[in-house]
Amino acid sequence: MAMVALLLCLLWAAPEVDVRAVLERQVAAWNQGDIETFMTTYIDSPELTFNGKDGVTRGYRPVLERYRKRYGTREAMGTLKFTEIEVRMLGAEAAVVLGRFDLARTEAGGGPASGRFTLVLRKTPQGWKIIHDHTS
Amino acid sequence: MAMVALLLCLLWAAPEVDVRAVLERQVAAWNQGDIETFMTTYIDSPELTFNGKDGVTRGYRPVLERYRKRYGTREAMGTLKFTEIEVRMLGAEAAVVLGRFDLARTEAGGGPASGRFTLVLRKTPQGWKIIHDHTS
Repeated sequence: MAMVALLLCLLWAAPEVDVRAVLERQVAAWNQGDIETFMTTYIDSPELTFNGKDGVTRGYRPVLERYRKRYGTREAMGTLKFTEIEVRMLGAEAAVVLGRFDLARTEAGGGPASGRFTLVLRKTPQGWKIIHDHTS
Repeated sequence: MAMVALLLCLLWAAPEVDVRAVLERQVAAWNQGDIETFMTTYIDSPELTFNGKDGVTRGYRPVLERYRKRYGTREAMGTLKFTEIEVRMLGAEAAVVLGRFDLARTEAGGGPASGRFTLVLRKTPQGWKIIHDHTS
């Protein structure tokens, strides 16, 4: 019975684990200075929206270009950390994630930065992808 | 056949219409100076989260208190307008809404304010309710 309960628990928790893994991949790619891989956590679609401090950016390529422009050097990328992550499932194929980011950065790189984000993810044939990012 | 297509179209569009109606109720209540009714568009639950410029507020009562504190007078509430509303359904029982708010306000009321929001809504037995609001 304990084994059945454990299995059920694992099955139930699986989508949340997959969603958290997307965020872990973001951090890992960012901290390797690899914006292209970081970007693959977003959906490759014109429906992608990114609401940053500078307004809304739409579509995969424009969001990638925005990251490239703002974080053009390894020093400007700094070291990313996510904390206070909360995953809420919205049915079986969507999720909303709240969290806080901290960017440790040299003064030359732009100095430290931090803020909070809301991510909306959808399960796609390519796995869980971010379809909307609101960072402030 | 045209009638069937029309009916199918209406059925398909219905949840989006219901979600937009929540935002219309927000604006109507706000502009009547009625924060209590405005607040009923949010889920009455500890799971409610509001990510504002001042951090995250959790739960119905604290979010209501936050609104009351920041918009304590009719003048501080001003006149609310939503534009650039985009509704994206996440399955049949959840939705994400992007938009822009503008608050027309006298200088004494705090002056004009504007920003962008991401709302996550869930279909509940009490109708569509906002479960998370990220405004910046």
